[in-house]
Amino acid sequence: MDNPDRLLQATVLAIGDELILGQRLDTNSQWISEQLLLLGVRVVEHMTVADDARQIAGALAHLSQVAPLLVTTGGLGPTLDDLTRQALASALGESLVEDTQAMEWLDAWFETSKLPMPESNRVQTLRPASARVLPNTHGTAPGLAATLNQCEIFCLPGPPSEMRPMFERELHKICKAYSSQVRVATLKTVGLAEARIATKLAGLMRRENRVLVGTTASDGIISIRIRCEKRSDESLFEETFDQVRQKLGTYLYAESDASLPEHILGLLREHHATITTAESCTGGMLSASLTDCPGASDSYAGGWVTYTNSMKMSQLGVPERVIEEHGAVSAQCVEHMARGAQARAGTSHALAVSGIAGPDGGTADKPVGTVWIAHAWESDRMDARCFRFTGDRAQVRTRATTAALAMLRQNMLGIKDAPLLWQFNASP
Amino acid sequence: MDNPDRLLQATVLAIGDELILGQRLDTNSQWISEQLLLLGVRVVEHMTVADDARQIAGALAHLSQVAPLLVTTGGLGPTLDDLTRQALASALGESLVEDTQAMEWLDAWFETSKLPMPESNRVQTLRPASARVLPNTHGTAPGLAATLNQCEIFCLPGPPSEMRPMFERELHKICKAYSSQVRVATLKTVGLAEARIATKLAGLMRRENRVLVGTTASDGIISIRIRCEKRSDESLFEETFDQVRQKLGTYLYAESDASLPEHILGLLREHHATITTAESCTGGMLSASLTDCPGASDSYAGGWVTYTNSMKMSQLGVPERVIEEHGAVSAQCVEHMARGAQARAGTSHALAVSGIAGPDGGTADKPVGTVWIAHAWESDRMDARCFRFTGDRAQVRTRATTAALAMLRQNMLGIKDAPLLWQFNASP
Repeated sequence: MDNPDRLLQATVLAIGDELILGQRLDTNSQWISEQLLLLGVRVVEHMTVADDARQIAGALAHLSQVAPLLVTTGGLGPTLDDLTRQALASALGESLVEDTQAMEWLDAWFETSKLPMPESNRVQTLRPASARVLPNTHGTAPGLAATLNQCEIFCLPGPPSEMRPMFERELHKICKAYSSQVRVATLKTVGLAEARIATKLAGLMRRENRVLVGTTASDGIISIRIRCEKRSDESLFEETFDQVRQKLGTYLYAESDASLPEHILGLLREHHATITTAESCTGGMLSASLTDCPGASDSYAGGWVTYTNSMKMSQLGVPERVIEEHGAVSAQCVEHMARGAQARAGTSHALAVSGIAGPDGGTADKPVGTVWIAHAWESDRMDARCFRFTGDRAQVRTRATTAALAMLRQNMLGIKDAPLLWQFNASP
Repeated sequence: MDNPDRLLQATVLAIGDELILGQRLDTNSQWISEQLLLLGVRVVEHMTVADDARQIAGALAHLSQVAPLLVTTGGLGPTLDDLTRQALASALGESLVEDTQAMEWLDAWFETSKLPMPESNRVQTLRPASARVLPNTHGTAPGLAATLNQCEIFCLPGPPSEMRPMFERELHKICKAYSSQVRVATLKTVGLAEARIATKLAGLMRRENRVLVGTTASDGIISIRIRCEKRSDESLFEETFDQVRQKLGTYLYAESDASLPEHILGLLREHHATITTAESCTGGMLSASLTDCPGASDSYAGGWVTYTNSMKMSQLGVPERVIEEHGAVSAQCVEHMARGAQARAGTSHALAVSGIAGPDGGTADKPVGTVWIAHAWESDRMDARCFRFTGDRAQVRTRATTAALAMLRQNMLGIKDAPLLWQFNASP
């Protein structure tokens, strides 16, 4: 490479009617972009087009001028709507020729799989005259590599199980030379609004900085990503990282891409602690978020979804008068739920959630989005907080799940005076 | 429109460093494409670019010439890396002006949420001079609408929870004029493999047909979409619809886009029936899938997540000897869990799930993916089945949730001799 500090750039093209019509989610482009970045190659543009030879050829011609590396997925199958090879030939101004090696691979594939080869598969042995075929160890569609406008084009099959091994074999070779250039880090916070973080990090987030800092928000979890693209900027990268960390304070929960439930299970494991859950409005989302993580059974005993008042009373021992006097969405009710669950499951911690997820059930006093959450630990420690979540039913439930885990984290780490996003000072 | 049979075309642009670098999966473009198709608008190109004003402006200029409608997502947040507004202004050759209505919305938003407004949010009140702002009922970022090269551009926020309601409000209006051209229907099945459906529907799925039939698979739920783009094909549409319906048989659960939990809650409501859940490996996903639907409390009482064996015994009365003799992943264990939950919750139906979600815990006899599910109803009816799900931990859990609901459906409707996908004949 002429300039060792220049990051190689690339583009990604996904091909398929099912993608463009929204019938299938394209996960290949994300995977390829992520893998390329780890190899020190930055993707600068994604495109998706239909199984249409003219459109594919147009996209190849365009993207070959944007960056010196182009990876495409899809359109290499045996059926009439697979047109990537024809389009590549047309973009190159060449005709298709039969490749003897591809022919051998295909014969061997059907030999091994004991299936007769449909005539339609023959088309998979064709390549544009100047292209070379890439072996497919997991399916019948060989890939193609060619050079157009000084851009190296790699056409990979669409199914991830075939595309990924081919990418790893073919692209790693190409990218290896650049892989040491880039540094990327992710930090994660819970309980702070994105705009508050933006204010705290203002100077660091300027787009002209050599070390780039960006944020992404998702229901109370904000990810902060730090990136530098030149080896000479490494010390600046470290400095930026430290500054970001300091400014986030106690809201920072991970210096990695860990999910909040993963982090919480790690904390519980460290403290040799166990936990149970008692859920009303979240209806199992809190327990599902914990059990989503492998190894959850080390710390999570199980829990209750007490959706009706009678389940709250019969299964967790919430006194009827508490519900009569204060309602099911109250500090008193979630405190009884938490203590009842903790006693029955025999765990060191318990989280209880009760609220109004909507769309119905709101009142002037307790509008939709009002949720009480209690955290009980040891024999006598209790924290109950009220939240007013914005958003629809799914958001209120997701945000309540996050808030419950964030409360647990603050109490386990002894963090005080750090109100969480959406926390609301209701009189109990 | 000049030609009433011509389908309106559109393009979709996703904006964000996190998307282009592969740190986040773009689900918006798929969702928008699918929704537009239902409105009779066909998407012909997707692009994704970084948070870079020059690149965004370039993409806007390019896509505005591809089709007369362009929907963008992302880059409308309050931080310095949100540059969609600036890029739109630059593509239009205009400057940004403060919008008084957007100012009022923002003040009202922070008023309601009782939070102080960070100064950085002010940028969200800016719009290019000729653009109009679109209200955001679920967040602080207003959308933008403008016309460039006779293309109508709609810039929507990136978070799906904010984007979707705005899309529904703004884009439905625009597309309505075209929607009478197109007929689209969705049918949903549970428990049949996509390849089996493709074989059953082979002739109907040919790409040259005037009425198009396509399938999308998602963890045991297959959606079949039928579409015709010309008013003159309506009778052929009806004919195709009937043929598809017949070929799907008892696996067809809805002639709409209804989710399986929605359908199940509808069935329970019709039968004046109630249900409880007892979950081990799904860890709350089954209850969460039901409570995700508004009005779930009509039929769902609540349930248990008995993750440990001791919770299965103490909370649901599973006898210790059952677990000792048969293990927690057995017909006997899930039958006791179901009957125990049904008795304690006092419901007419109970579903119980216990299995090995992985990645650890598999044995030669019961490999990862082995799940037992029981459905108990009335005082003496019981159905227990073994499944062997493929895929990773998340897939096994999702598929087990679907299978449990599918079993309930078959038993409530008296459907016999219709084995579900992944069902496995284990000796109990």
